[in-house]
Amino acid sequence: MSADMRFGVLTGGGDCPGLNAVIRAIVRKAIDGYGDQVIGFRDGWRGVLEGSYEELTLESTRGILPRGGTILGSSRTNPYRRADGLERVRATLERAGVDGLIAIGGEDTLGAANRLHTDGVPVLGVPKTIDNDLGATDVTFGFDTALQVATEAIDRLHTTAESHHRILVVEVMGRSAGWIALHAGIAGGADVILIPEQPFDIDEVCHLIRRRHERGRYFSIVVVAEGARPREGTLVAASGAADEFGHPRLGGIGHALESEIERRTGFETRATVLGHVQRGGTPTAFDRVLATRLGLAAIDAAREGRWGSMTALRGTRIELVPLADAVSEVRRVPLEEYRRYDVLFG
Amino acid sequence: MSADMRFGVLTGGGDCPGLNAVIRAIVRKAIDGYGDQVIGFRDGWRGVLEGSYEELTLESTRGILPRGGTILGSSRTNPYRRADGLERVRATLERAGVDGLIAIGGEDTLGAANRLHTDGVPVLGVPKTIDNDLGATDVTFGFDTALQVATEAIDRLHTTAESHHRILVVEVMGRSAGWIALHAGIAGGADVILIPEQPFDIDEVCHLIRRRHERGRYFSIVVVAEGARPREGTLVAASGAADEFGHPRLGGIGHALESEIERRTGFETRATVLGHVQRGGTPTAFDRVLATRLGLAAIDAAREGRWGSMTALRGTRIELVPLADAVSEVRRVPLEEYRRYDVLFG
Amino acid sequence: MSADMRFGVLTGGGDCPGLNAVIRAIVRKAIDGYGDQVIGFRDGWRGVLEGSYEELTLESTRGILPRGGTILGSSRTNPYRRADGLERVRATLERAGVDGLIAIGGEDTLGAANRLHTDGVPVLGVPKTIDNDLGATDVTFGFDTALQVATEAIDRLHTTAESHHRILVVEVMGRSAGWIALHAGIAGGADVILIPEQPFDIDEVCHLIRRRHERGRYFSIVVVAEGARPREGTLVAASGAADEFGHPRLGGIGHALESEIERRTGFETRATVLGHVQRGGTPTAFDRVLATRLGLAAIDAAREGRWGSMTALRGTRIELVPLADAVSEVRRVPLEEYRRYDVLFG
Amino acid sequence: MSADMRFGVLTGGGDCPGLNAVIRAIVRKAIDGYGDQVIGFRDGWRGVLEGSYEELTLESTRGILPRGGTILGSSRTNPYRRADGLERVRATLERAGVDGLIAIGGEDTLGAANRLHTDGVPVLGVPKTIDNDLGATDVTFGFDTALQVATEAIDRLHTTAESHHRILVVEVMGRSAGWIALHAGIAGGADVILIPEQPFDIDEVCHLIRRRHERGRYFSIVVVAEGARPREGTLVAASGAADEFGHPRLGGIGHALESEIERRTGFETRATVLGHVQRGGTPTAFDRVLATRLGLAAIDAAREGRWGSMTALRGTRIELVPLADAVSEVRRVPLEEYRRYDVLFG
Repeated sequence: MSADMRFGVLTGGGDCPGLNAVIRAIVRKAIDGYGDQVIGFRDGWRGVLEGSYEELTLESTRGILPRGGTILGSSRTNPYRRADGLERVRATLERAGVDGLIAIGGEDTLGAANRLHTDGVPVLGVPKTIDNDLGATDVTFGFDTALQVATEAIDRLHTTAESHHRILVVEVMGRSAGWIALHAGIAGGADVILIPEQPFDIDEVCHLIRRRHERGRYFSIVVVAEGARPREGTLVAASGAADEFGHPRLGGIGHALESEIERRTGFETRATVLGHVQRGGTPTAFDRVLATRLGLAAIDAAREGRWGSMTALRGTRIELVPLADAVSEVRRVPLEEYRRYDVLFG
Repeated sequence: MSADMRFGVLTGGGDCPGLNAVIRAIVRKAIDGYGDQVIGFRDGWRGVLEGSYEELTLESTRGILPRGGTILGSSRTNPYRRADGLERVRATLERAGVDGLIAIGGEDTLGAANRLHTDGVPVLGVPKTIDNDLGATDVTFGFDTALQVATEAIDRLHTTAESHHRILVVEVMGRSAGWIALHAGIAGGADVILIPEQPFDIDEVCHLIRRRHERGRYFSIVVVAEGARPREGTLVAASGAADEFGHPRLGGIGHALESEIERRTGFETRATVLGHVQRGGTPTAFDRVLATRLGLAAIDAAREGRWGSMTALRGTRIELVPLADAVSEVRRVPLEEYRRYDVLFG
Repeated sequence: MSADMRFGVLTGGGDCPGLNAVIRAIVRKAIDGYGDQVIGFRDGWRGVLEGSYEELTLESTRGILPRGGTILGSSRTNPYRRADGLERVRATLERAGVDGLIAIGGEDTLGAANRLHTDGVPVLGVPKTIDNDLGATDVTFGFDTALQVATEAIDRLHTTAESHHRILVVEVMGRSAGWIALHAGIAGGADVILIPEQPFDIDEVCHLIRRRHERGRYFSIVVVAEGARPREGTLVAASGAADEFGHPRLGGIGHALESEIERRTGFETRATVLGHVQRGGTPTAFDRVLATRLGLAAIDAAREGRWGSMTALRGTRIELVPLADAVSEVRRVPLEEYRRYDVLFG
Repeated sequence: MSADMRFGVLTGGGDCPGLNAVIRAIVRKAIDGYGDQVIGFRDGWRGVLEGSYEELTLESTRGILPRGGTILGSSRTNPYRRADGLERVRATLERAGVDGLIAIGGEDTLGAANRLHTDGVPVLGVPKTIDNDLGATDVTFGFDTALQVATEAIDRLHTTAESHHRILVVEVMGRSAGWIALHAGIAGGADVILIPEQPFDIDEVCHLIRRRHERGRYFSIVVVAEGARPREGTLVAASGAADEFGHPRLGGIGHALESEIERRTGFETRATVLGHVQRGGTPTAFDRVLATRLGLAAIDAAREGRWGSMTALRGTRIELVPLADAVSEVRRVPLEEYRRYDVLFG
């Protein structure tokens, strides 16, 4: 084994419960397990580009395990959006005396990591997304927390819906994959679940709600992913439902459904837009353990020079997979899986 | 003491955690304490008008203490909105053999109860509103649960806001009183709190956020009551922010602030609209105990023929106050109290 | 496919969050998916032996998804402990017109199911144990909830330990496998984790606590599985630490450690014995989804006549494995895995 | 108003959720509201005796609002247990340039504060105890959190008790007052509540449990305060149930009841000893708001030179009461109040 080494770590992209647990595990294992050093770059790739970092120690990472967010900060900076990005990354790593980089992030962050690896930079990845839409791992940390938060909200809505005969719409996260909506809908006992993978028909939604009504079920819970969309021409989306990038605006589809269902069925309908509540705060035990295991495995992989790989959960084991696999495709909800749950609804 | 008696109970208005706890306490005390009978009217005053009720027993009220909602159902029906309302109430009570009625509800429900009392109907009230805006009691059950739910949401948002340098807007309930916003803002460590009692100036809000930014606090949490309004002319509210009754639409002010703060400051801003999550689900221990105590006191009061009164918390004691006092004025946040917390913000 | 069928379901052994979710999924899928019927036997195998059961309907299983416990009741009855057990099982199934039986349970319940299968009774299993010690599945439902409850308790203890310079001992469940202790210890940031798989040395435990003290960490959190035991001769267990079956009494090892650590180190030490809090109450979203998926798969398997098999989670998929595999060995924490986390402790 | 002032603050006694919220409010108000300075003494009176303190700033108190424990540390040191205690206190305050002291604590801490006041030291108090047994205030912060934690535990136990026909004993805190047991028992729907104020008869407890059994309620939840005691001669307490000070050992009464109820009734009985889980961790919203208000009022009182007084909640207002009143008597559960809830049990 080589002499003591020095690794850099960064967190990129949107918030995700468990980031601090990964950082802590990396630092503990590097220092106590190998006698290595770790530096943390601030605000994702921006810190690498600008040479902004700090030494991470046992002391500076104490107490962060149960905390949401990331002590390193984050950004959506991508080194390849600057002409001199690659050059700057190399320069920083050399100046900081870093033997390799551990990038914790989602599709964007890991995409940049993979490209840097191809360009010869020693980097490996730890997958992170509350949306659980990365293909190369069974599950990503952060998803379980988001799911739990959404489910607790649905639990609360259930009693009101039932005693007050309301239609309650819950908009959860999920821009291109419906995992949070599907699993929170199953866990919360929703009556309708709308996901980005399957454009919905507002007539069918209202039909289902009315049929429940006829059977004496005077309430319904509709769980909708922020990225769910009506089938072409069936619902005039509320204006302002997209931001300047054409991304759906949080609350867009939730409030559109609220208006449309009330208008069509005449039943009192109310929307809850959980938004960033799903991204922040203390991680569930599941996510803390998974994040910790991924962090420990990442430093082992770095020690072994497994650059270009990514830590992944496969069954009960943490394995290494090529970064390239991780970013090649978004893992969406298969439609046959979505339909398998039909008996639970309505 | 008179021979065995028979009381009716109803729950009216919006949902509120603790309703079932009141019902259970009434039934237990009436049956086990006095050997009395209790019937429950379905869906608030509607059940009284239409003679729709059921016998409540120890068995039928088992297990409901920790559950949100109301096993009796609720509605916004007001007997005085029908010409024959009073007559129908009297007829039902006579037919059902009811010696008196316990109405659990907010301003509307208790307003009707008070008028019925004036018209000679034996009725007393138990106050209920998550908004905590009834003057004659120190606090209403349901408020503590709403507060706790809102505070937990703010806790979650805090870590994201901080690590991702975001402005996060949380819209909480409170149409005409800002108690939930004020207390959840204090408990959650919010940086700006906007309440209906004090029209806000969007320029000041943005100024405060920018000043924090200059001091290195690159995030802010803004808690806004659904009924908070901009000072005349300072913010063009998003269209659709009011429903057909002119009431603010849930999410209206939250999303309006989201757009406006982002547009003016250039800082990424996201809104969470908690909505009915605050009204439903299991009550906090505080609300269960308060609701139980109010229910026990209500049946004692009914037994003593204290019609026209309302149970109320005063300090550590449950007392009886005139129903007329309870509905005479909304208890709003005094502006000097609102300002007292200024040192906590920003 | 055969004409409409009729299946029996039972829940056996200790409590486990998610049992009701399995039952509900089975009923929904059988009735709405296949037009089949389901009956529920009361109190595990006892209901089969005594012919005590009820028809399960959509209506009778409504609202049970988020509830802990089991609407069917449970017991530790084993049909093979009676001479006429097998005969009685056969008689009941015939009388009840049942085409096959779904047994939801742990080692004992599934052991009986496997033996019944060998004896020609059409039965299949759904694995259940909060201890997560069944070999044939990646994870069992109930474990995640127990883990979450234990972790939240450790979170609460942490702040007290730290500000009040205490040693806090948390006894969690796990008679022969240390999964809850290990994962809750990792998730809660414990300083010492003691599991049944590795007899501990009280001297080492005290040494570690003292070393932390010398480094200015004046507190420690010790997580101990109820089945953890001192190395031969190193700790005189508190009398009464075993019940009449020789099983460790809940609280035995926790309180023994409390006394012994305080006596040896002189540091104030306090024990918390979580006990059945880990077995009951609402399941986490993870457990609700897993339990639901297992229930759906069980009815599919029953429909296909896959008797003698058990539903299992493998990676992201629900698969069928032989019942015999499930009960052949207890899945314990591998010692090399236990040691892998050493860098996190102390 | 005098020129800028300088105040000291300390936290004494056992842990209590909300201590950090008081400290933060004091610091914010002193610095931002008055331009004053605050120093924090470490580990209660010990820090005053030994001159160990630190400057508290907006920065050093950031983010502590939702955290359990106390950033200042605590101890059970009492200045009057040293011959030179008073002299040392005076010397430290003079050397530190402190105009007055704010002591946050329970009976012991405030008792010392009151005596110091009598001896001419400028000191005022903020009441703190999870037991809620101080007479001069409606409620103390920390109580609500302890109550909520205990209630959530009972909720979890309920489903297990019910489906598995168990007697579950929950030992909660409360050495000399039964407020936590009483309120958690009411909120959790307990069947038996045992408090220190009323010695219990084990025969009656078992009789009640058996009677429930006869009525088809095959389970019972028994909530017992750690300080509850059997009536003379009715139960031989487990040996080891008291520590060296003669204080009941945590778990003593809980485990004694577990054995005794099982032995006498033959029903499976299990105990949960919540212990310090009730003292630590994040405070409820209620406790955060109350603690914050008390902190703000304390600094106002200090500014006005109201030495010898204590902040207290009276109805909805924070008022000042003499410290002497606060420590003159323990507020116990009145027996007529205890009996008022009888109809809820059994």
